[in-house]
Amino acid sequence: MESYGDLSETERTRHRRLREQGRTDRSALFAVLRAGFVCHLGVVLDGTPFVVPTVYGVDERFLYFHGSVASRSLEGGQAVCVTVTHVDGLVLARSVFEHGVNYRSAVIYGVPRALTGPDKLAALRVLSEHAAPGQWDYARRPSKKELAATTIFALPLDEASVKVAEGPPGDGDGPDAELGLWAGVVPMETVRRPPEPDPALPAGIAVPAHIMKIASPDGA
Amino acid sequence: MESYGDLSETERTRHRRLREQGRTDRSALFAVLRAGFVCHLGVVLDGTPFVVPTVYGVDERFLYFHGSVASRSLEGGQAVCVTVTHVDGLVLARSVFEHGVNYRSAVIYGVPRALTGPDKLAALRVLSEHAAPGQWDYARRPSKKELAATTIFALPLDEASVKVAEGPPGDGDGPDAELGLWAGVVPMETVRRPPEPDPALPAGIAVPAHIMKIASPDGA
Repeated sequence: MESYGDLSETERTRHRRLREQGRTDRSALFAVLRAGFVCHLGVVLDGTPFVVPTVYGVDERFLYFHGSVASRSLEGGQAVCVTVTHVDGLVLARSVFEHGVNYRSAVIYGVPRALTGPDKLAALRVLSEHAAPGQWDYARRPSKKELAATTIFALPLDEASVKVAEGPPGDGDGPDAELGLWAGVVPMETVRRPPEPDPALPAGIAVPAHIMKIASPDGA
Repeated sequence: MESYGDLSETERTRHRRLREQGRTDRSALFAVLRAGFVCHLGVVLDGTPFVVPTVYGVDERFLYFHGSVASRSLEGGQAVCVTVTHVDGLVLARSVFEHGVNYRSAVIYGVPRALTGPDKLAALRVLSEHAAPGQWDYARRPSKKELAATTIFALPLDEASVKVAEGPPGDGDGPDAELGLWAGVVPMETVRRPPEPDPALPAGIAVPAHIMKIASPDGA
């Protein structure tokens, strides 16, 4: 099994820049993909690019995403680009030029395949459990009709690029350090808040333990 | 001045779906764009899509973004798509099918123009002040050499689509409400933390007020 080996380099995944450090191991790819559930899907329609946010899930070989907007353009086996980005901080340097962002991002290139039959149901489960672990067994599963109304694509995790930019600004040991200016990082983080019940919910339905965990995945 | 009027509808900005509500006023566009500083830029290279995260800033007419990866493909006046997304919550419904994400997103289509001369410096200022208000006057501004090494594009805010999905799941008044399952929203938010000084910073340099405000824009 090739999972967790190295990410092979291609012309478009080769890393070109500096403070952004390219990562070449698959565990770095999975770390980025597992930290979120909304990606930006890029497709080409009539020669122009479209970028739409959409929900995704991953297993060891594929990234699965919902079709909707993209479906009409993807049925012919077209190339896509899926990007997942986490913003970790604003880097405030001594010079405007050295300002930047601390982030983790994964970019995946490939031709997705629309799933059918048992593959489709299995992918929907992966997607559901990725975004909301425990809901597949708790909520009502898709009916045949709902399944037919859903388009799920599988994108192989074969060609991917991972970049991580972290740490303080890069001008702490250059001539600008003499300016006597404050420099550092404003950390940023995506946090989850306590579950808010649907106003339509009757009294007496407690929040299940798995949903408490979705709201506080680190057990805080 | 056309700012803050309505967003004109085109074939690709027409809204097609349901719980995601399309917004057609420009103030909704600016609300989404002002709430962030990292966008996903989509370009087409050799017929395939590329989606890269990049920093942006806006004024009333343009979105400005850094070139880097995109520059080589954009110098010929090619179309791009810029998408800004804020994830506000995970919507946990009674059925898997009704699960979703609360979010705000803006998608802008157009042909960006590479800036030069005073326009470029002005755009860099907009971009810098958008992401880190006050730093343009505090930090060292770009030298001629740094300016030459920077590529800034201006994308007109003429063709844009804004979507907002919010509120509880949609199955609270359907047959699934009888299942007696918990349903609601796990709110999500991007927060900023107190500034972390560069370890290379000498003792005695206090965090300036404008940086305290960047770290806590709502004055919390």
